[in-house]
Amino acid sequence: MAETPIRLGILGYGEISRRLSKLSKAIALVPNATLVAIGSRRIHKATGIMSADGFPSWVKMYESYEAVLDDPDVDAVYVPLPAKLQPKWAVAAAEKKKHVLLEKPVAPDVVELDRVLAACEASGVQFMDGTLWMHHPRTPEMKEFISDRQRFGQLKSIHCCFTYYANPEFLENDFRLKPDLDGLGALGDCGWYCIRAILWAADHQLPNSVTALPGSLFNNAGVILSCGASLDWADGKVATFHCSVLSNLTMEITATGTKGTLQLHDFVIPFKHDTASYSTASESCLEELSTGWRARPSEHSVANDLPQEALMMREFVGLVAGIKRDGKEPDNKWPAMTRKTQLVLDAVKASIERGCEAVEVGS
Amino acid sequence: MAETPIRLGILGYGEISRRLSKLSKAIALVPNATLVAIGSRRIHKATGIMSADGFPSWVKMYESYEAVLDDPDVDAVYVPLPAKLQPKWAVAAAEKKKHVLLEKPVAPDVVELDRVLAACEASGVQFMDGTLWMHHPRTPEMKEFISDRQRFGQLKSIHCCFTYYANPEFLENDFRLKPDLDGLGALGDCGWYCIRAILWAADHQLPNSVTALPGSLFNNAGVILSCGASLDWADGKVATFHCSVLSNLTMEITATGTKGTLQLHDFVIPFKHDTASYSTASESCLEELSTGWRARPSEHSVANDLPQEALMMREFVGLVAGIKRDGKEPDNKWPAMTRKTQLVLDAVKASIERGCEAVEVGS
Repeated sequence: MAETPIRLGILGYGEISRRLSKLSKAIALVPNATLVAIGSRRIHKATGIMSADGFPSWVKMYESYEAVLDDPDVDAVYVPLPAKLQPKWAVAAAEKKKHVLLEKPVAPDVVELDRVLAACEASGVQFMDGTLWMHHPRTPEMKEFISDRQRFGQLKSIHCCFTYYANPEFLENDFRLKPDLDGLGALGDCGWYCIRAILWAADHQLPNSVTALPGSLFNNAGVILSCGASLDWADGKVATFHCSVLSNLTMEITATGTKGTLQLHDFVIPFKHDTASYSTASESCLEELSTGWRARPSEHSVANDLPQEALMMREFVGLVAGIKRDGKEPDNKWPAMTRKTQLVLDAVKASIERGCEAVEVGS
Repeated sequence: MAETPIRLGILGYGEISRRLSKLSKAIALVPNATLVAIGSRRIHKATGIMSADGFPSWVKMYESYEAVLDDPDVDAVYVPLPAKLQPKWAVAAAEKKKHVLLEKPVAPDVVELDRVLAACEASGVQFMDGTLWMHHPRTPEMKEFISDRQRFGQLKSIHCCFTYYANPEFLENDFRLKPDLDGLGALGDCGWYCIRAILWAADHQLPNSVTALPGSLFNNAGVILSCGASLDWADGKVATFHCSVLSNLTMEITATGTKGTLQLHDFVIPFKHDTASYSTASESCLEELSTGWRARPSEHSVANDLPQEALMMREFVGLVAGIKRDGKEPDNKWPAMTRKTQLVLDAVKASIERGCEAVEVGS
């Protein structure tokens, strides 16, 4: 007899219907998960999406988030709200013993995030953020490469870039660019991924300091549209990133070690839904007289059985099932990763506000 | 009847025999050029290389640089000396009415470079630096892409990286890492190319300011082994670069515009000697529900009839022939490009020395 699936609720926000729809589809692909409730202040709009996607009739549609959290049939919630609203609802969810999958950017700052993490810890529920690419099978395979002392050597530098081109309607209306709803702008929407990628490559070791790069751009409300930062570690490692909503869609990681180089061009969302590639080079060198390369980078391809959003959901639901059925403890790896990402993000924001002064990363 | 070729001399430096040999071969490939003289303080070593490469008997071997410059049969000289020696010999060459092809880094600073450029101008001789990749046919083709308002839009950011892994013998002995001979280290050897690439992408418009990135590394003599910088322009464009002799060989350019992205992984020396590729993307976008990319980058390949070092020599010799035979003026495009590269390099160096303070770029 199949086990009862983990029952999920979603706290939907009007404008992010695409995200809600994507995650609903992802849940449907995970054997051990079922969507049971959606709460949305704009329930008619949400219902419209659900109907269009042909979701089953058992999904309960609530006109408030509270109703989802009060529903005893809901084991866990996916919270994809604007950053300034998320801590309140994530804390409320944890207090109702619901496991929390929180969309990024997770919170306005680490103080707010810590409220969420404390609530999750106190209730013994799993916390995870919505950084999809962590769950693609390409990610551990690349990690194996950069952890290999023979092929990659010691990590020396990382550069990461995530930009997309926002149309005028998005620039005008999207909640990510409104100071009362999000306030982190491109830094929260794109920079979050870059910071995570840098920390991931650096084995989640926090940098000593973070320095924003000159040339940040803001909208009229003072929200970041484009920025970058430099990170440095005591061992001589360095990293830079650039994020923007004003440039063509670009998703880059280049990591160099003493012996190797890792590169990919689609780290946030792979070019294809069922396979993803990356490039590695080891002990690259020139031909005699430097007329070409003797050792050139090679491409590697990794197939994924489910889209990465479903892989994330499978991972999350697996942890929830472990806690609910087998009495396991929540996996602390995930909140720890989120918190470090937030700490660096906060330092970048502080450095921008202080005119690109170097800022020590908190703990 | 074929025209008399342009007659070239080389001022050779002991340790850079590979460079000397590469350029000698390049000269042999250019129809309108002939190598007639080599001056080297270590002439026996130089002779050894020449013999091994089977160079013709007419090449005169001098034991001093002066002898090459005094030889009336020499029209132009290639000067691949350490940066601190180059200005003296380039000035001497220009004063003897020899056209000057000067290896990079061209000089310790712009003050020294200006002595060279003034001497060349006073003598009416052509000046060009040895930045090979400027002469590959891939370069103007890429430039066409990033100048295209439809396909690339407005340039927003550039990232550039050139690193290689120096072995212990190089770290110990190479003149690039000796303060009395070069003093610019990785900044002069690798950063030069990155700065040129950034200026090339930015239509040779100088940035407002340059800020070194934290985390520069130095050898015991204080010479830069690894560093980076951020550049910013009044119109909101930004650029970063990273250069190092402590990481695996990596040569990256990523340029993003409002509508397009340009990328290549071998900008300094192409992977292959007879063809080079680059990637472009225009109006990249995601599929509905963000499960993949609808418009992905595409690869383009450009064949070259000669290796890029011969293409540089052909360009240089063509300009010299125009001056010598047709009474043309020297092409000022080349010294202007060199000077801007040096100005930015000087600003990076100054910013490193001032603890990563933002430094205005001179003029």
